[in-house]
Amino acid sequence: MEAYRRDRANDPNAGMPLAVVRARSTEDVQVVVRIAASRGVPIVPRGAGSGLSGGSSAVDGAIIVSLDRMRSIDIDPSTRVATVQPGAFNAEVKAAAATHGLWYPPDPSSFEFCSIGGNVATNAGGLCCVKYGVTTDYVLGLTVVLADGRAVRLGGPRLKDVAGLSLTKLFVGSEGTLGIITEVILRLIPAQLPPTTLVAFFPTLGGATAAVLAISSRMRPSMLEFMDRTSINAVEDETRMGLDRDAAAVLIVQTDEPGAHAAEQIAKVEEICNQNGASECYSTDDPEEGEAFIHARRVAIPSVEKKGSLLLEDVGVPLPRLGDLVMGIERISQARQVPIAVIAHAGDGNTHPLLVFDPRDEEQKARAEIAYGEVMNLATSLGGTITGEHGVGRLKRPWLPGYLGEDVLELNMRIKAALDPQNILNPGAVLAEQPAVVREVDLATACH
Amino acid sequence: MEAYRRDRANDPNAGMPLAVVRARSTEDVQVVVRIAASRGVPIVPRGAGSGLSGGSSAVDGAIIVSLDRMRSIDIDPSTRVATVQPGAFNAEVKAAAATHGLWYPPDPSSFEFCSIGGNVATNAGGLCCVKYGVTTDYVLGLTVVLADGRAVRLGGPRLKDVAGLSLTKLFVGSEGTLGIITEVILRLIPAQLPPTTLVAFFPTLGGATAAVLAISSRMRPSMLEFMDRTSINAVEDETRMGLDRDAAAVLIVQTDEPGAHAAEQIAKVEEICNQNGASECYSTDDPEEGEAFIHARRVAIPSVEKKGSLLLEDVGVPLPRLGDLVMGIERISQARQVPIAVIAHAGDGNTHPLLVFDPRDEEQKARAEIAYGEVMNLATSLGGTITGEHGVGRLKRPWLPGYLGEDVLELNMRIKAALDPQNILNPGAVLAEQPAVVREVDLATACH
Repeated sequence: MEAYRRDRANDPNAGMPLAVVRARSTEDVQVVVRIAASRGVPIVPRGAGSGLSGGSSAVDGAIIVSLDRMRSIDIDPSTRVATVQPGAFNAEVKAAAATHGLWYPPDPSSFEFCSIGGNVATNAGGLCCVKYGVTTDYVLGLTVVLADGRAVRLGGPRLKDVAGLSLTKLFVGSEGTLGIITEVILRLIPAQLPPTTLVAFFPTLGGATAAVLAISSRMRPSMLEFMDRTSINAVEDETRMGLDRDAAAVLIVQTDEPGAHAAEQIAKVEEICNQNGASECYSTDDPEEGEAFIHARRVAIPSVEKKGSLLLEDVGVPLPRLGDLVMGIERISQARQVPIAVIAHAGDGNTHPLLVFDPRDEEQKARAEIAYGEVMNLATSLGGTITGEHGVGRLKRPWLPGYLGEDVLELNMRIKAALDPQNILNPGAVLAEQPAVVREVDLATACH
Repeated sequence: MEAYRRDRANDPNAGMPLAVVRARSTEDVQVVVRIAASRGVPIVPRGAGSGLSGGSSAVDGAIIVSLDRMRSIDIDPSTRVATVQPGAFNAEVKAAAATHGLWYPPDPSSFEFCSIGGNVATNAGGLCCVKYGVTTDYVLGLTVVLADGRAVRLGGPRLKDVAGLSLTKLFVGSEGTLGIITEVILRLIPAQLPPTTLVAFFPTLGGATAAVLAISSRMRPSMLEFMDRTSINAVEDETRMGLDRDAAAVLIVQTDEPGAHAAEQIAKVEEICNQNGASECYSTDDPEEGEAFIHARRVAIPSVEKKGSLLLEDVGVPLPRLGDLVMGIERISQARQVPIAVIAHAGDGNTHPLLVFDPRDEEQKARAEIAYGEVMNLATSLGGTITGEHGVGRLKRPWLPGYLGEDVLELNMRIKAALDPQNILNPGAVLAEQPAVVREVDLATACH
């Protein structure tokens, strides 16, 4: 059971489960939920265990329902939909779609080892979202096992269906707190054209973030990624690919426009980067060469991880505030004396500050934990979010009430209480530890 | 008040409201809801009154909250979002976006006189959805007045935000039953390229629907519309534009691919149409000439309306069942001796059968009403939906329980009861007339 207690967040406070059930079917999941519901036992659903917010952390005495054996994938090219079991990996869905000339766009950096069920449960994002949207934009239907063991089918292989409330979309991003997803119907689109890639180094953070804003307001790249100096150096230590260690930041931009439009768009991006003080730009229409830079971006987290233990952030802001966020994070890093490497899906304002600390240094660890909260508070103060794509899980739970505010939090609680009145579904994640209590409507106080 | 009792569905059973409030702000709406909540008075929210399912039909003694004076539109080109009040027309949002080289894609046929608030409340579709998705795919944030008068902000101008449940998406498509939307934050994309258009006539319905399936499985047109013989003739009666009156069906296909790719794609579409027995194909890369055919499609409903009173359907099926649906509708038309004109957003399987009857002929009207239900039952039996984009409103309410099934209906009821425990928000629409009652979980029966 040790292997199923934690996800990649490695929560030290993960509980000890009662049992792990590796379900093979919707019916298996129903049986487990019925037994748990009849005795009030908590259930923690789990996909590939690649979550970064601790959403699959066990609670003491819980039944872990692992979906890792439910991995079938069925592609229907005529309706361009994939019917997928939750344990299938994102990369496996992409590969199955590709055999029909189709594409499933959402691409978390972990796409090779994260599950579709987890992607749907967290409404996962990725690198291509800047042009192609997030997971929810591709979910047409779900099969969900409810808190009492009933299984329901929501939506279906239809782009349009407005009969009844949008329950499919409600379950997307619910992190296992409302039901257990046992089948997903995904919308696919035609295969992406080969990308053209531009890499631009900047001597200042402000130049790089100003370029991001200028690019975004004039065109629609298929990827717009950012790494700061700390990330660049960590990646260069690992890859020795010749990145500019002195640059304050690098942007990696891709376009997948057809034919001559790609070259045109990349030329415009280069012009914008130069106008914003880029020290060096390099572009290539060779997809493999472009992939080497994307690889550099994807290995940023493991590269930085070699420098110490990490607290991984996932804050996002409206694009015009990206510069304020990145420069504010630099200030927090200096004030707390905690190195923070910043990588970002810059084009959609979603950043992953990586707080590095020496795990043997309790005092630095404490400072890192303070900085972790400060980064979220900064993002919120800039009109941003505490989590763009990883989910609240367990690690970000203390910051959720402050971010949502009392009224929206209470709205979340009402839905939770309506769908899981016993609070047995992933009770350690997202919402407060106490069972959801619906506040009585008080018109006198509501009228302030 | 007479002008605010009904929408375009012209429900003869619309009630007589107590009052109409034309709100100017979120605060106005809050005041009304607080007063209504304190006395248990029903509220019917209303945008432009262009709904086709009766979702804005008054109930007796209700307060109509009209949002038709809340029409501000603010475009931020750097984040590519529009912040819009609910009364703004869809066409006005498109126009405001266009001044910045941006585009708001969803395009109900009524786009010139339907409101964004209504679009969001029904998760409206349109012609371009086949490539660009439906309203919910563009809604990033909402301000909503809840059933107790509190106003909450959900989401925001960020493509990625997974903090808490996906409440923004839950309110999209809720048809005024969960809250009153007073502001919408919409995602915009760069302006569409000028389209190339192909029109193909078919001697058989089966040829046309087979062509739709073949086109959809091989490429991604930006529009793929269908009209049957009855519709063609009604439109030709009005427009005298030279449509082939003998054809069983016509397809109108557009692509907005750049440059030479458009011609390539249209050539492929023409080849597929010919392979499926098209009697005539005509294509043009002149956007204005193309627009004439789109216009023909858009005037289909008013043209058919000249032939008698209409019952307007909105059923959808998975694409491989489109032929079965269209041919099944022809059988229902013959069996019930009720003319049914079929127009369709064929590319996403969403059809609008128009049942025509003589309003002075009570007996034919009764047969039309039977056929109306039979068409929904047919769609459901083919794995489809009773409403693809118009909403359940009042007219389709009797068919919702059968379509959703007991468990999903009960799930809808739970959410409704959690968010509107007094059942004062649009109580005449979508769900049953009785206040929502949450069924106690019965594990014994749940285990069947």
